[in-house]
Amino acid sequence: MDTAVEQWARFEVRLAGPSAGNPFVDVQLSAEFSNGQKRMRVDGFYDGEGVYRIRFMPTELGQWSYVTESNVDALSGQSGAFACVQPGADRHGPVRVRDTFHFAHADGTPYYPFGTTCYAWAHQGDALEEQTLETLKTAGFNKMRMCVFPKDYIFNKNEPAYYPFEKGSDGEWDFTRYDVDFFRHFERRVEELGDLGIEADLILFHPYDRWGFSTMPHESDYAYLRYVVARLSSYANVWWSMANEYDFMLRDKPMEVWDRFFDIVRLGDPYDHLRSIHNGRYEHSYDHTKECVTHVCVQYWDVKRMRQWRAQYGKPVIDDECEYEGNIKRNWGNITARELVHRFWISVCYGGYAGHGETYEHPEDVLWWSKGGVLHGQSAPRIAFLRRIVEEGPRGIEPLSGDFPWDRTPAGGCGDYRLIYLGEHQPRHFENGLPERGRYAVDVIDTWDMQIETLGVFEGKVELELPGRPYLALRVRPLD
Amino acid sequence: MDTAVEQWARFEVRLAGPSAGNPFVDVQLSAEFSNGQKRMRVDGFYDGEGVYRIRFMPTELGQWSYVTESNVDALSGQSGAFACVQPGADRHGPVRVRDTFHFAHADGTPYYPFGTTCYAWAHQGDALEEQTLETLKTAGFNKMRMCVFPKDYIFNKNEPAYYPFEKGSDGEWDFTRYDVDFFRHFERRVEELGDLGIEADLILFHPYDRWGFSTMPHESDYAYLRYVVARLSSYANVWWSMANEYDFMLRDKPMEVWDRFFDIVRLGDPYDHLRSIHNGRYEHSYDHTKECVTHVCVQYWDVKRMRQWRAQYGKPVIDDECEYEGNIKRNWGNITARELVHRFWISVCYGGYAGHGETYEHPEDVLWWSKGGVLHGQSAPRIAFLRRIVEEGPRGIEPLSGDFPWDRTPAGGCGDYRLIYLGEHQPRHFENGLPERGRYAVDVIDTWDMQIETLGVFEGKVELELPGRPYLALRVRPLD
Repeated sequence: MDTAVEQWARFEVRLAGPSAGNPFVDVQLSAEFSNGQKRMRVDGFYDGEGVYRIRFMPTELGQWSYVTESNVDALSGQSGAFACVQPGADRHGPVRVRDTFHFAHADGTPYYPFGTTCYAWAHQGDALEEQTLETLKTAGFNKMRMCVFPKDYIFNKNEPAYYPFEKGSDGEWDFTRYDVDFFRHFERRVEELGDLGIEADLILFHPYDRWGFSTMPHESDYAYLRYVVARLSSYANVWWSMANEYDFMLRDKPMEVWDRFFDIVRLGDPYDHLRSIHNGRYEHSYDHTKECVTHVCVQYWDVKRMRQWRAQYGKPVIDDECEYEGNIKRNWGNITARELVHRFWISVCYGGYAGHGETYEHPEDVLWWSKGGVLHGQSAPRIAFLRRIVEEGPRGIEPLSGDFPWDRTPAGGCGDYRLIYLGEHQPRHFENGLPERGRYAVDVIDTWDMQIETLGVFEGKVELELPGRPYLALRVRPLD
Repeated sequence: MDTAVEQWARFEVRLAGPSAGNPFVDVQLSAEFSNGQKRMRVDGFYDGEGVYRIRFMPTELGQWSYVTESNVDALSGQSGAFACVQPGADRHGPVRVRDTFHFAHADGTPYYPFGTTCYAWAHQGDALEEQTLETLKTAGFNKMRMCVFPKDYIFNKNEPAYYPFEKGSDGEWDFTRYDVDFFRHFERRVEELGDLGIEADLILFHPYDRWGFSTMPHESDYAYLRYVVARLSSYANVWWSMANEYDFMLRDKPMEVWDRFFDIVRLGDPYDHLRSIHNGRYEHSYDHTKECVTHVCVQYWDVKRMRQWRAQYGKPVIDDECEYEGNIKRNWGNITARELVHRFWISVCYGGYAGHGETYEHPEDVLWWSKGGVLHGQSAPRIAFLRRIVEEGPRGIEPLSGDFPWDRTPAGGCGDYRLIYLGEHQPRHFENGLPERGRYAVDVIDTWDMQIETLGVFEGKVELELPGRPYLALRVRPLD
C-alpha cells in the first residue's frame, strides 16, 4: 500500500549520503516526479549529518512516482511512489493570480490578501514566536510578510535565535554552509502559518543587516536562493518576495542581479509560487510589468493611486506598506488606527489590497511589525471586519468605471454588487453608482464601529438617505 | 479748506449730466487725478437719473487734484482737489503680493488669507444679508468669495433681490442698461465687508445662471466689466476673480476671451487689485503663469499638492475650494469639519492658503456657501485659531526644503520659526526639522481642541517627547 499524500500537502524523500567535504556545494540532487503525462523536476537539499531530502508538493491527484538524480551514486536512481488523494477541507493549494487583478488558491477558492508584517518574528526565540502564533490565531490576517534573514534596525538590536549560515574556523560566516537548525526552525514557522491559513510572504533579501547577509557575493546570493527554494517551495503557503526595499541595496545588487534572482527562484520552484519585490522609495518602485513578477507590491502612503497602479501594471496590486498604525518617530510607523483602516477601505474599493503593520513604542522594543508578540492597536479587528465583508461578496472587486465621482469616492463592484466607501465624506443623501434597474439591498457599514445596518431594499435609480457621518461604506447587493 | 480723505479711503466726484438716450453707452467719462508727479486715470460711470460719478482711492498722501474728461461737455473739464491724509488705524490699503508667495496690504501689514465662500449672499435680501454680516463679525474670516451675478444652482432657486440689468420693453434683459439699485446695493455690501476687515474676492462671471448673464455677447461682457471696475475699483478691499469655474463656460467664452477679461480689468483698475480665476475641473486649471494673474486660485481637494503649485506658478497659492464642510450629496460639499481643518493646516504649513465653505443641508436651503446666514459647522473657529497662530508668527511661511520627511509632514517656517503639522501621524517622539543650534521654545498645538501647550525650551538638536495623538502641530519659536 502506497503512502497517501493529500493534494498540495508535502511528500518528502529522505536519503542518506556523504557528509564529508561540503555537501551543500559538492552534491547535486534532484528528482523527477511523474504522474501520467505530468512530469516535475524538483531540487533536493542537504539537511546536515549525511541526510538529504527532496520535498514535493503534488499538484494533481493520482499515482505519483519519482526517480532521483545526483552526482553522488548513493543518491542517484532512488525511486518510489505515492498516491495523491483529495485534500482535506482546509487545504486549497497555493495562491495564484486570478482574473488579472485578484488571487485564488489552486482549487479555485478566492483568496483576498489581508496581510500583516512581522519582519523578524521567526528570529525571536520560541516564547515570543509562539505568542505571535497565538495572536495570529484570532487576529484575522491571512498573509505574513517575514524575512528569511535576521534583521538589524531601530528597535531590532537583539541577536536572532538562529543564524542562516555556519561560521568558519576563522570566525567569519561561511556562506557556503547553511545552518540546518536555522532552516528547520524557519520552515516550521512557515508551516505553522500554513496551519493557521496564513500565506508566508517570504522576503529573501533586505538591507537591515549587521552580519553581511545583505552584501554577500552574488554567487552566494544565488546559491542561497537555490537552497531556500529547494527547502521551501513545497510549502503550499509560500510566496516569494525578492526583497524588502530592494532599492536600498542597489549599490551591491544592481538591477540585473534582481532580474537574476527572479529567474533563479522561478527556475527552482516548479510550482510557480507568487513572486514580487518591495520598494523603499516610491520613485524606485520596481518595474512590475516584467514578466517574472506575478503581482505588484508597492510601498506608498497614498493608496488613492490604486487605480493608477492597476492600470500601469495590469496585475494584482498590494500596497503592503501604506504606513503602519503606531506612534514611533518615523512617519511610516505612526499613523492612527483610523487612518490605516481608512487606507484599507480605499485600497479594496479601488480593486486593490493593502497591508497591515503595527509600530507602537514598547518598553522592551517588542514592536509587532518586526518581532510579533501581541497587538496593541485598534486596526486589526477592523481590517478583519473588512476581510469578512470582502469574502462574503462576489469574486473580486473592480473599481467602478469613470473618473467622477469615483476619484473622490472609492467604489468598486462586481456585476450589480457594489462596495462604496465614503471615508471623510458624510453625505446625507447619495445616488451615485447604484444599479440602474432591478431590486437590490443596501447596507450602511460603519467601518470603525464595525456595524452593518440594513438601509432597505430599493429598485432602480433612487436617492438614499444616509446617517451623514464619516467613515461609512455602502454595500449594495442585487436581489434578483 | 480742502476735503480730507484718508489714504486708501474713497473720494467721489458727483456730476450732473444727460439722462436721455442710453448714458451707459453714449457717455464716456474719466478723470485724471494727480499728486505731484503721480498721475492716475480713472473711469467714471453713470449712476442713473442724470447722475455721474467718478470714484478714486488715493494711494499717496498729500494734495490731489483732478480734471474730468468726457464726450459730453457738461461732464468735461470739471476739476477739484482734496488732501489725502494719514489713514485710520484699521485702514491698511489694498492687498498686494508680497515675497512671491504671500500677501500684504499696501502699508506693509501682512495679510494672510483665511477666506470663506458665500457665492450669492449679496442677492438674498436685507434680512439674510444682515445676518451674514453679523456672523462674519465673529467668524474669523478675512476674505469672502462672492459673485456679482445672481446664482442659479441646486439649493439656489430663489430669485435675487436685485438684477444687474434692466429689462427692455420686450421683456428681455437689456445688457446695455445696468440696474443702478443692484450696484448700489452690491457695493454697500462690499463696503460693509471692508468695514469688518474682510476682502471681497469678487467673482465676475460664473456658469450657474438661468437669466443669460453667463452667455451674453462678448461685447456686453466687456462693457459689464468696465462698468463694474469703474464702480468698484476704488474699494480698497476688492479682489478680482474673473470667474468661478471658468472652464464650464469655455464653449461660450473661449480662452482668448478670458485673456481679454484680464486685460480689461487691468486697464480699468489703476490700483492693480489682485486678479485671478478659479477652475472647475482640476485638469482645466488656468495657466496662472500668465503675467496678468497675480496669484493662483485653484479648486482641488488634495492640498498636499501645495508645494507643487507654488513651484509650478511662482505665485501665492490659494486653494479656495479644497471641498467644503457639510453633508450635501455632492462630494465637494460633504467633508467633515475635521477634514477641512486638516486641509487648512496642510495648506498653510506648505506655504499656501486654503478656503472655507459650508454646505449643510437646511430645511429652507439656506446653505452658507451660497446664501450666507449662520454657520452650523465646526471648522470656522478652528480656522480662525489657525489664522491667529499664523498672524502671531513671522512674515510668511515657506515650506521646509527637502522632500523627506516633509512629503509626509507638512512643515514650514521662516528663519528658525517652524510650524510643523503632524496630521494623521501621532509620533511619541520627534526630532526632524528643529533648529540645529540656539535656544527655542516649542509648543504643542491641538488643532482641533484649539489648545496650545508649552512643551518647553530646548537648545540645538533634541528629540521631543510628544503626546502621541493625531491632529497636533508643533510651533517652534527661536528665543535668541
